[in-house]
Amino acid sequence: MKGIRELAKHLDISIGTVSRALNGKPDVNPQTRQRVLEAAASLGYVANQSGRSLRKGATGVIGFMMQTGSEITGQGDTFFMSVFDGVQTVLARHKLDLVALLCSSEEDPDDYLKRIVARGFADGLILSATRRHDPRIDLLARRKIPFITLGRSLTDGGQPWIDLDFEGMAQASVDRFVARGHRRIAITRPHDDINLGYVFVDACRQALRRHGLDLADEHVFRSTPNEAGGYQIARQLIACTPRPSAILLVNEAIATGLYRGLQEARLLPGRDIAVIGQQSPHSHFLSPRLTSFTLSLRDLGIALAETLLGTMPAYRDMYPEQPHRLLWPMTLVDGESDGEAPAD
Amino acid sequence: MKGIRELAKHLDISIGTVSRALNGKPDVNPQTRQRVLEAAASLGYVANQSGRSLRKGATGVIGFMMQTGSEITGQGDTFFMSVFDGVQTVLARHKLDLVALLCSSEEDPDDYLKRIVARGFADGLILSATRRHDPRIDLLARRKIPFITLGRSLTDGGQPWIDLDFEGMAQASVDRFVARGHRRIAITRPHDDINLGYVFVDACRQALRRHGLDLADEHVFRSTPNEAGGYQIARQLIACTPRPSAILLVNEAIATGLYRGLQEARLLPGRDIAVIGQQSPHSHFLSPRLTSFTLSLRDLGIALAETLLGTMPAYRDMYPEQPHRLLWPMTLVDGESDGEAPAD
Repeated sequence: MKGIRELAKHLDISIGTVSRALNGKPDVNPQTRQRVLEAAASLGYVANQSGRSLRKGATGVIGFMMQTGSEITGQGDTFFMSVFDGVQTVLARHKLDLVALLCSSEEDPDDYLKRIVARGFADGLILSATRRHDPRIDLLARRKIPFITLGRSLTDGGQPWIDLDFEGMAQASVDRFVARGHRRIAITRPHDDINLGYVFVDACRQALRRHGLDLADEHVFRSTPNEAGGYQIARQLIACTPRPSAILLVNEAIATGLYRGLQEARLLPGRDIAVIGQQSPHSHFLSPRLTSFTLSLRDLGIALAETLLGTMPAYRDMYPEQPHRLLWPMTLVDGESDGEAPAD
Repeated sequence: MKGIRELAKHLDISIGTVSRALNGKPDVNPQTRQRVLEAAASLGYVANQSGRSLRKGATGVIGFMMQTGSEITGQGDTFFMSVFDGVQTVLARHKLDLVALLCSSEEDPDDYLKRIVARGFADGLILSATRRHDPRIDLLARRKIPFITLGRSLTDGGQPWIDLDFEGMAQASVDRFVARGHRRIAITRPHDDINLGYVFVDACRQALRRHGLDLADEHVFRSTPNEAGGYQIARQLIACTPRPSAILLVNEAIATGLYRGLQEARLLPGRDIAVIGQQSPHSHFLSPRLTSFTLSLRDLGIALAETLLGTMPAYRDMYPEQPHRLLWPMTLVDGESDGEAPAD
């Protein structure tokens, strides 16, 4: 990202001309203006701070940063669409618009966010997919850009966050499995360095320990957070000796692939292996019905937006009582997929 | 949307002061500036044309307008995420960023787009979910904003478009059903006024006519484009007398609900009723395997982006040979869901 000085130097034009071209003054040759605008775009020109913060006060746009790409396709999308719905409900009260900032999986999220911040078209930001250490949080805190994260991180920028209550999910699931006689309990986790993987594994380990059980490393299955990942987990699970009798899934989409993989091995969820997962529009139609955790994604979106607005000077007075940091509860819905452990 | 004159009048401040506040001049009281910026945001202030088109030349952002909300949740999301991936591949070459412009289902898409255009932060736009008559196309054509539509419309703004080849899909499916002895063939269509519904019903009607068959009105099932819609279609289909022996689905997500609804009535796709659909990450895991149409969504995204850039002065020379309007082919993949018609 360059300032006006670098831009002028690159173009070999005076700073005054570059400034006039960028600011739409009439006394600039149209070809020169075009050259300046193209160079500004391609070099990532950053206007000076006062101009930027001014624009930021009035863009009327809230950005929601999320990652795209084949690795995550299948996951998250219905999740995010429902969260967006709640965010928009709040933003509509203030004539603010939500845009999804789509960071390609081929790009470094930190570089991406730097560029987005430089473009300066959002008044506030919601970050998802927080990593264990997440420089994006430092960046936004340093720039004093209002933001909230959907997810925790070891990086603390003093910002508000909301995260799903993975601890509660782990505890309730393990208690239930154990009550039904399961002792060899497996779990899944995302394949990448997203923080929820660490949080979830720790939470499961602690929940098991309360029952005097260990979480074996080979019973923590990493996968891409999509249907194909679930299918792969089923294959690995089947190959285990001895095989875990129960598995807890920390993703909405992988149940579909897991069911298929188990079915191919003539294993029936609920009879041959106990499965608890997270609910999605698709999981409703699995057979046997998936025992799963559900939450109101729309309400989660509402809470994200209201908490974010509560940190922004223009809206703070309207949202004075927002919790700063919150574990969002999930509810366990009975299905047919988590039966008793078979006698060993 | 208001100009500077209305804004000054509303605030009871001189136009000069409002202009200085909006343009970041130092000689404005900070409270006044704040008032002006907030009023500008809440009233939807529109800067004058020359300022806007100037900014548009340098925002570095391409917007993809899509609709959100519970009615469409479940559909489209994996579809769009994969298309985005292709769009981003092209934009990355030019250091352009893609943002998803999320129009809530509770809002009029035309009003939404007007506001987005007024905010002026995108250099070019991709519109999805084109309606039969779509004023958004007129708006963008009138404002001379570079855009492409993913989908056709009766409204013609002279813009490029790419649409799926629903005609080819209808013809191939009907030919296949008829060759396997089916005569009572049902189809699905979206519940709303999205143009693809009209295109698809017409295409199916013509394809059937080539075999001397009619498309009965009661065999055109409308539904929301999600799993719940598919379940509802299954219930309606089962209630038909005589029951259609084959059904063609024009959506990726509804197969999941349809399978479940048929299963509850102990009807097996491929044995009791022939089903052809569209492929999705989920449909891979249906059992029996769904016979379905597939396409490279990533390549579709690449084509959308390259065609859009081909209309933009700054990029035109790099994309000289883009097709202006294109029906995107789909490939039929054999599954187990479209067997022979049962003997009547």
